[in-house]
Amino acid sequence: MVERYALEPIKSLWSLEAQYKRWLKVELAVVWAYERLGIAPKGTYQQAIKNAYIDVEKILDIEKEVDHDVIAFIKVATSKMGKEASFFHYGLTSSDVVDTANSLALIEATNIIISEMKNLLKLLFEKALQYKKLPSIGRTHGVHAEPTSFGLKFLSWYSELKRDLKRLINAREEISVGKLSGAVGNYAHISPLVEELALSKLSLKPTPVATQVIPRDLHSNLINIFGLIASAIERMAIEIRHLQKTEVLEVQEPFKKTQRGSSAMPHKKNPILCERLTGLSRIIRSYVHTAFENIPLWHERDISHSSVERFMFPDVTTTLHYMIVKAQHLIKNLVVFEDRVKRNIDTTKGLVYSQRVMLKLIEKGLTREEAYKNVQKLALKCWETHSSFKNEIAKSFSHLLSKNEIEELFSPDYYLKNIDAIYKRFEDE
Amino acid sequence: MVERYALEPIKSLWSLEAQYKRWLKVELAVVWAYERLGIAPKGTYQQAIKNAYIDVEKILDIEKEVDHDVIAFIKVATSKMGKEASFFHYGLTSSDVVDTANSLALIEATNIIISEMKNLLKLLFEKALQYKKLPSIGRTHGVHAEPTSFGLKFLSWYSELKRDLKRLINAREEISVGKLSGAVGNYAHISPLVEELALSKLSLKPTPVATQVIPRDLHSNLINIFGLIASAIERMAIEIRHLQKTEVLEVQEPFKKTQRGSSAMPHKKNPILCERLTGLSRIIRSYVHTAFENIPLWHERDISHSSVERFMFPDVTTTLHYMIVKAQHLIKNLVVFEDRVKRNIDTTKGLVYSQRVMLKLIEKGLTREEAYKNVQKLALKCWETHSSFKNEIAKSFSHLLSKNEIEELFSPDYYLKNIDAIYKRFEDE
Amino acid sequence: MVERYALEPIKSLWSLEAQYKRWLKVELAVVWAYERLGIAPKGTYQQAIKNAYIDVEKILDIEKEVDHDVIAFIKVATSKMGKEASFFHYGLTSSDVVDTANSLALIEATNIIISEMKNLLKLLFEKALQYKKLPSIGRTHGVHAEPTSFGLKFLSWYSELKRDLKRLINAREEISVGKLSGAVGNYAHISPLVEELALSKLSLKPTPVATQVIPRDLHSNLINIFGLIASAIERMAIEIRHLQKTEVLEVQEPFKKTQRGSSAMPHKKNPILCERLTGLSRIIRSYVHTAFENIPLWHERDISHSSVERFMFPDVTTTLHYMIVKAQHLIKNLVVFEDRVKRNIDTTKGLVYSQRVMLKLIEKGLTREEAYKNVQKLALKCWETHSSFKNEIAKSFSHLLSKNEIEELFSPDYYLKNIDAIYKRFEDE
Amino acid sequence: MVERYALEPIKSLWSLEAQYKRWLKVELAVVWAYERLGIAPKGTYQQAIKNAYIDVEKILDIEKEVDHDVIAFIKVATSKMGKEASFFHYGLTSSDVVDTANSLALIEATNIIISEMKNLLKLLFEKALQYKKLPSIGRTHGVHAEPTSFGLKFLSWYSELKRDLKRLINAREEISVGKLSGAVGNYAHISPLVEELALSKLSLKPTPVATQVIPRDLHSNLINIFGLIASAIERMAIEIRHLQKTEVLEVQEPFKKTQRGSSAMPHKKNPILCERLTGLSRIIRSYVHTAFENIPLWHERDISHSSVERFMFPDVTTTLHYMIVKAQHLIKNLVVFEDRVKRNIDTTKGLVYSQRVMLKLIEKGLTREEAYKNVQKLALKCWETHSSFKNEIAKSFSHLLSKNEIEELFSPDYYLKNIDAIYKRFEDE
Repeated sequence: MVERYALEPIKSLWSLEAQYKRWLKVELAVVWAYERLGIAPKGTYQQAIKNAYIDVEKILDIEKEVDHDVIAFIKVATSKMGKEASFFHYGLTSSDVVDTANSLALIEATNIIISEMKNLLKLLFEKALQYKKLPSIGRTHGVHAEPTSFGLKFLSWYSELKRDLKRLINAREEISVGKLSGAVGNYAHISPLVEELALSKLSLKPTPVATQVIPRDLHSNLINIFGLIASAIERMAIEIRHLQKTEVLEVQEPFKKTQRGSSAMPHKKNPILCERLTGLSRIIRSYVHTAFENIPLWHERDISHSSVERFMFPDVTTTLHYMIVKAQHLIKNLVVFEDRVKRNIDTTKGLVYSQRVMLKLIEKGLTREEAYKNVQKLALKCWETHSSFKNEIAKSFSHLLSKNEIEELFSPDYYLKNIDAIYKRFEDE
Repeated sequence: MVERYALEPIKSLWSLEAQYKRWLKVELAVVWAYERLGIAPKGTYQQAIKNAYIDVEKILDIEKEVDHDVIAFIKVATSKMGKEASFFHYGLTSSDVVDTANSLALIEATNIIISEMKNLLKLLFEKALQYKKLPSIGRTHGVHAEPTSFGLKFLSWYSELKRDLKRLINAREEISVGKLSGAVGNYAHISPLVEELALSKLSLKPTPVATQVIPRDLHSNLINIFGLIASAIERMAIEIRHLQKTEVLEVQEPFKKTQRGSSAMPHKKNPILCERLTGLSRIIRSYVHTAFENIPLWHERDISHSSVERFMFPDVTTTLHYMIVKAQHLIKNLVVFEDRVKRNIDTTKGLVYSQRVMLKLIEKGLTREEAYKNVQKLALKCWETHSSFKNEIAKSFSHLLSKNEIEELFSPDYYLKNIDAIYKRFEDE
Repeated sequence: MVERYALEPIKSLWSLEAQYKRWLKVELAVVWAYERLGIAPKGTYQQAIKNAYIDVEKILDIEKEVDHDVIAFIKVATSKMGKEASFFHYGLTSSDVVDTANSLALIEATNIIISEMKNLLKLLFEKALQYKKLPSIGRTHGVHAEPTSFGLKFLSWYSELKRDLKRLINAREEISVGKLSGAVGNYAHISPLVEELALSKLSLKPTPVATQVIPRDLHSNLINIFGLIASAIERMAIEIRHLQKTEVLEVQEPFKKTQRGSSAMPHKKNPILCERLTGLSRIIRSYVHTAFENIPLWHERDISHSSVERFMFPDVTTTLHYMIVKAQHLIKNLVVFEDRVKRNIDTTKGLVYSQRVMLKLIEKGLTREEAYKNVQKLALKCWETHSSFKNEIAKSFSHLLSKNEIEELFSPDYYLKNIDAIYKRFEDE
Repeated sequence: MVERYALEPIKSLWSLEAQYKRWLKVELAVVWAYERLGIAPKGTYQQAIKNAYIDVEKILDIEKEVDHDVIAFIKVATSKMGKEASFFHYGLTSSDVVDTANSLALIEATNIIISEMKNLLKLLFEKALQYKKLPSIGRTHGVHAEPTSFGLKFLSWYSELKRDLKRLINAREEISVGKLSGAVGNYAHISPLVEELALSKLSLKPTPVATQVIPRDLHSNLINIFGLIASAIERMAIEIRHLQKTEVLEVQEPFKKTQRGSSAMPHKKNPILCERLTGLSRIIRSYVHTAFENIPLWHERDISHSSVERFMFPDVTTTLHYMIVKAQHLIKNLVVFEDRVKRNIDTTKGLVYSQRVMLKLIEKGLTREEAYKNVQKLALKCWETHSSFKNEIAKSFSHLLSKNEIEELFSPDYYLKNIDAIYKRFEDE
């Protein structure tokens, strides 16, 4: 976790104190279940709540001695308890607590992320609507192709992130499981009933089959989706970086009044936020592989995944959260130079309309062959002499095309005629 | 694609001929739509089907000249057509064809994979049932922990792969989209109606928002799931490799009569299939990152993903298919040495029952402190002198524990008492 | 290996026939050593050479039966031998042959790659010299910064690839080892002398400590370097894609006469080769992780690396070779629009010179504070009104700066004054 | 950086304070160079040292305002300076400072890592010597193969890490470069002489060709080597985890007196350190890909690498350092159960000697065919009936083999006869 890329409320989720509180929450849920099932005497749960004690420093001290974080935690947590202590952690193995608490943390993190994604989606959709009718040049291979709607860029990001949101909601559902089945997952010293009851108090379901731990495909799957979200934001960031290039300058990412790009060059407003988002996406994607490697643990579990997860869970959740929050700022305050967007369409002096001109000439009676040859010849000439394709067409085909027709042929609006049909797919949003 | 790891029917999916046939299928669906919408004259579709022509070598020859595979394909495909040729590829851009056909190929591959996964799941469930009551030692950190059901291993794999199957079915649904919206995805020269109709003929839906191409998060998501499946099989393979180690020898992967492990050492039956599956999983997982990198294409598309996909799509689908088919063979014919499985529980001469003994002594009236101290002392002694823990317990606690009680305490069956509850979660299968 | 991205002579290296020939070469070198050491009778080697027999189909047939490729190979290779057969594969284990032959193949592949890298380096250096004095705009964050030498781009690529070449030569030296030490690498049935002698005939050295196999860090290290080379080429490709963007258009990748970008749009010369190189780099980089995973094999070896390497070795070597060969074509025939390169410097109408102007004004007696404020104010005005910064400066500071001085201040040549010092670092090339 | 996996002295390297101090060191070296070259007046350097001021909190406060960490640093650093401030950061761009300081940090981290690697190598070599003559069973595919020296395991790790050390020393040499050449690396406002002099004071060399930044292949190369070292340690850790498995139990990783594996099961000494090392290796390897992605920056630089490096540099260096330090503890205090090591050789009741027996019988006059058939038949029988192969051979070949000969045939010492030759390769260590 890098301080500057970790924002609240997700950052605090990963403090040691928050972790121990989650562990306590799990342990207490089990005590509660024992009481409910009549195994522990009435009042045990209330006593346990009352006397449970957490002191981060003390726990760390004991851990240094016993080399086992859960044992250290239990020692301190029960240190002020009376008889109720005998039902604390009863029948459990350490991983029951750690893994169930992991689920709680990941769910909470995912909830925050989902909520911010929804904010981002809203902003994207607004921008998509705002720029729906703004014609712009579509680029393939980085080269001008044909005009299109500027709003479509936002709608495309919106559509991708909506898919990611759906995937994330599924993944959250999957990870909403706990595990209270003992050392090798066979309920040798704890009843499945206790598990079911305790987990229900935590809004979790039992893992259908666990070993000592919850199977790591669940976590890997979640992190895959995080990787997809990061990549979606990276796609946005790279597009904006392209559009902010000095020669293109269709947009500019928000720039604070007091911010310093360069001392004397006012054009030096660099898309540093987008570049940062690009880099952070690499961090999240790098954990995808790591999460996969945690799946094939040995036998009923080896603990190699644990050190990995101490990095991974905080890093991916805080970083992704940061990315989404910053992407909101980016989209909300993005400066769009509409004039320039329109003007850039004409960078090639009309050549981007050549296909449309050709089709019109066929309509007017030329054979496809004739139309193609003529258009291509003129286009090539214009390209080489940097002259206006529109003028050349007007000159060469004045007998076939009226002034009005030529104006219309070289208008970007034609290319937006079916945009409504695309937007209609999202009309219920 | 490595020949030896590519099996039919998935292998042929990726021949050039199959690819051109898919392209043709897409192009013809569009012709069909034009005719249905009254844009092309009646009979156009029939003529196009009749005269369409594919010759792999010719296409490759022309590609060498024009450096463009779709243009080369169209030239040959329409070379024997009459007027109907004018509706062939009409209004389309190359990616409309390539990407829609990609979806067809990936769906077909996924269908085959799903079908084989179901076979594998069936075998796993059978084995889970077969070994449900076979006690075995559970191992954590590679060290004996407590007894458990041998069948649970299979049930655990079954449960993980079932999750993966569900994810894969979702991913297939997502990838079941085509895209026929022209150069920059704005339907400038083709109507959304044509797209909808043509795609419906191919059992596909339109991509909600496309650029020149179908967004690559769809493909990345699919390959993530492939990675999860590969990792699940890797987990099985690694477990079997562990269980086949000479000192453990609980299982043996199937070994052909004529197969040669070593000339003179009959015990040298190596788990080479499991090792191969372990390696192949690395291949599939390596493509996960690559697929992510294909997501943030520039502007309305750059074509950097294309060379990647020429490796990736054939490699991941054939390799995963191979893995699943071989895993079936592995599971179906896995030799389980049941005696040895049972015998291994006693490797530690009873120490794995120590926790249970301790709990019993508490039941019999010892304080937790007394029970713990006594048991630990004896256990330590046995561990160091390699003597039987059962004997020591019998000697030391004859006043508290009857012979029968001791037998029962040192029986693995106790640890299987809740296994039914786990299996019940799958009783509808 | 994807056919279209595999060129000779590297492609044939990976045919089965070539592989068996390498195996034979290793086996015969051992026979030769036995004869040299007086263990095999005189003439054995000559007989073995004469009677050795390879038939790919036969070997594959037998492999199907015995599930072991080396045993199948030996059966066929010795099938026409007499007594000399008893020294064929004598004392060896399969991996002795496979791994030593792997080294031969990787060395041969690396030799070819090194040779092509040298060609590429030569071309890059030529271009660096050719464009040394061509002023161009330097861009940071995609935004215009200050003028620089266009040739420096090439020199920068040259310098990076030179480092890579040095690394590759080191890696080749490291991989130039064989291993003929038997089943667990302890020379139980073969003498270290035989190994040394046989390997020297193959221009290899013994692996200092082997298990059954040559340690995989050697292969991983080689593939890391391949990844670095691929990334260097990717950097070149991405730069050229940027420079070929319609709004920038400083360069154009070579375009065949018969090549088709778009039917009617002559500007649609897409940098498809650079995009392909970008994609292929992803493929090579993806294997880096895979190669790492091959290092921690179990005990004296597990064979999980083997299936991986059947993909990896052919894929990375052919693809990298292809990339380098194509990069040569790219660099050699790159079209540089020099006028445009120069013209683009003025996109901001002189703002890129603002820092230099400020320094000059300080020289002329203004305080840093005054100079900065004045320049910044004018620069901001020009940026907002799209007016010429040079004109504004000329107007505002006519009392301090002569016409000549102003011309000089707004000349890019100033920024090239220390370029020679950089080039001098490479004067021995 | 995860607190628990970061040890001093490397941990403090990455504090903000240490970073600002490095930045200051670079800035002051430049001031020094200006004075040495007569550009700054005498005494400037002394004044700058005296008045330079660093206050972490103040810098962070200003950064929040200007969104630029280097500008904030300069403001504070020069806040108490007089005229000497005009030579502070003179002619430099931010990256000159950041990147040169990065090199200093990476070199310092690498120095520490190298020093700890040497300690680890020493320990490994000692163990290699200690167990040179201890026979043990070699395992391939996890299955017993033939006896070998137990010490060879250590020597094999030693040999691999020695290669890694050499690679790391090379990489350190490569990264020992700074860069003081201004905004686009062309020395527009600073002389190459200043760079050379200032860098020499920092024991660095100039980067031959830089853009705004030092090329990222240098960093990527370094991190590749870190990945190799991590993988080497992972290989050791996995071997030890295998050898500590309950059924094998040849070794035990050090276990603190107060450490708690399990309450009542003394055999539950889990190889948690080795498992942790396995996991941490995944973390380091995951950054390898990320570092590659930092290479192809746009034009004269984009800043996407920066956020990545804020994670990467601290994470990889602290984690690798932790791994090496812990590996020393592991190797130094590794418990080897020599009896068990020897005893495990006989797990198969002599079958591992079958190849040797066969060769002896040929020596005694049997044809290879006869020898093979007889040995194989007996071996198979023993394998199936769990009887002693030695006894069977003694019974069946009493006419050919004396008692002594049989004893010798079934002795592991034979397999160590060439071990000396391997160790001799390291005799100068």
